[in-house]
Amino acid sequence: MKMITTIQEMRQTMQAYHKQGKTIGFVPTMGYLHEGHVALMEAARKENDIVVLSIFVNPLQFGPNEDFDRYPRDIARDEKIAKEAGVDVLFYPSVAEMYPRPLSVKVVVTERVDVLCGKSRPGHFDGVATVLTKLFHLVMPTRAYFGMKDAQQVAVVDGLIRDFHFPIELVPVPTVREADGLAKSSRNVYLSEKERKEAPALYAALQKAKAAIENGLRDPQAVRALIEDYLTTHTSGVIDYVDVYSYPELKPLDTLAGNIIIAIAVRFTNARLIDNITVDVPS
Amino acid sequence: MKMITTIQEMRQTMQAYHKQGKTIGFVPTMGYLHEGHVALMEAARKENDIVVLSIFVNPLQFGPNEDFDRYPRDIARDEKIAKEAGVDVLFYPSVAEMYPRPLSVKVVVTERVDVLCGKSRPGHFDGVATVLTKLFHLVMPTRAYFGMKDAQQVAVVDGLIRDFHFPIELVPVPTVREADGLAKSSRNVYLSEKERKEAPALYAALQKAKAAIENGLRDPQAVRALIEDYLTTHTSGVIDYVDVYSYPELKPLDTLAGNIIIAIAVRFTNARLIDNITVDVPS
Repeated sequence: MKMITTIQEMRQTMQAYHKQGKTIGFVPTMGYLHEGHVALMEAARKENDIVVLSIFVNPLQFGPNEDFDRYPRDIARDEKIAKEAGVDVLFYPSVAEMYPRPLSVKVVVTERVDVLCGKSRPGHFDGVATVLTKLFHLVMPTRAYFGMKDAQQVAVVDGLIRDFHFPIELVPVPTVREADGLAKSSRNVYLSEKERKEAPALYAALQKAKAAIENGLRDPQAVRALIEDYLTTHTSGVIDYVDVYSYPELKPLDTLAGNIIIAIAVRFTNARLIDNITVDVPS
Repeated sequence: MKMITTIQEMRQTMQAYHKQGKTIGFVPTMGYLHEGHVALMEAARKENDIVVLSIFVNPLQFGPNEDFDRYPRDIARDEKIAKEAGVDVLFYPSVAEMYPRPLSVKVVVTERVDVLCGKSRPGHFDGVATVLTKLFHLVMPTRAYFGMKDAQQVAVVDGLIRDFHFPIELVPVPTVREADGLAKSSRNVYLSEKERKEAPALYAALQKAKAAIENGLRDPQAVRALIEDYLTTHTSGVIDYVDVYSYPELKPLDTLAGNIIIAIAVRFTNARLIDNITVDVPS
């Protein structure tokens, strides 16, 4: 595995791969790798000649009240995980390397942002789209891998790639789950023992909603009510949102049709959990 | 010469050239081609295997008071000029092809815009940078050609390519001039006979300033005064601006050093003329 920290070396390395006609799978991350990231790397490993992982804690996507400095970092451990997952190139630039001077341009995301978790993080996805634009140009991947755990990010990246005609295939990778259905997350350790037992109710509620839709339910309000009922009955958490939108457009629907997302966020004592499923609704 | 109107065909065509390892020279225009554009195509022809010309009147870069509908168009004539200049691919998409639905992302230019002509055209360069991002991804050129007549646009594109790490070389092409020094422009025909005789004074004033700098002048205010004097004495036009900035950063300078631009705009009765020179000032 090559570890690259400069833009110049990254560019030269990737140009050589492109000249050889290699397919490139790209997994952009902020590091502190967990099983979700490993699933992305494994998917990229299966489908491409070369796998590139980037680790960059991007200051641009942190809000003024979000702690960039305290974001967890462990490059030695990450390097080991990446090597084991079969990564060929680990790109690990410094902030000074990525932002040597104030940017003269930025990407602004104008759709798909003012809902779900994006609602409370103004500018977050501008920072994500801007750094991805930079990274995409440095890596020039054939395919880029993103986890469906953050389905809104996948939707934003879908728009970025499609509207700017990036010659890149977006590959959404299913959320990795515990045996009981709970979506894996580094936040799960902050759950109390009792809360941990309740937490699978998030995915169970989503599955109940899916079954109801498969049985003919088409009213988004009824879907939301069904999930809220289930969560209230089965957990001690406080519901942050239960939302149903078209996917990946993230527009409200009067009646369910086409590809939709059902997304929920529940606050427990020391952890806010999110989960979602997408459903292709026959019209 | 291939004439291509769809994104899909453009993508396939360019992919084939890339697979063959061809170098690609790209000249993005809004059509109604004149000698300035021909100079760009000729420069591209000399340096690349394949020359791509795009003709797209981009609604995104027109302000609410700027008439997108009345922008001159003559594709039959343009096609002939492009063929004669040795263009291989003419990309001529419709607005519906380039913007099939509202964009979910856009490029916002945050530096180099609030000066010179950009000052009175808010959002103009956002539209330019957004459409260029789209076109760059479709063409994936080795080199992109822009005329120095619009030096601010070259500066913005320089920032776009550099800050987003586009793997593209920007090639600024010198302004094409009449024998008497007047920068060629489709607006020159709107000058009266008397004004046409005065108009070479713009370039003459810039040359006088350059000579003074070469003789040691380093005070930007003195350079401006020198030019304003010359223009007032030699033309009946009204000075819109005479500005001196660092180039391509377009920042004000206390004392001249490094690469600088001297840019002027003069209003005649029915035409506003612009001109500029860049000077590398030894410090």
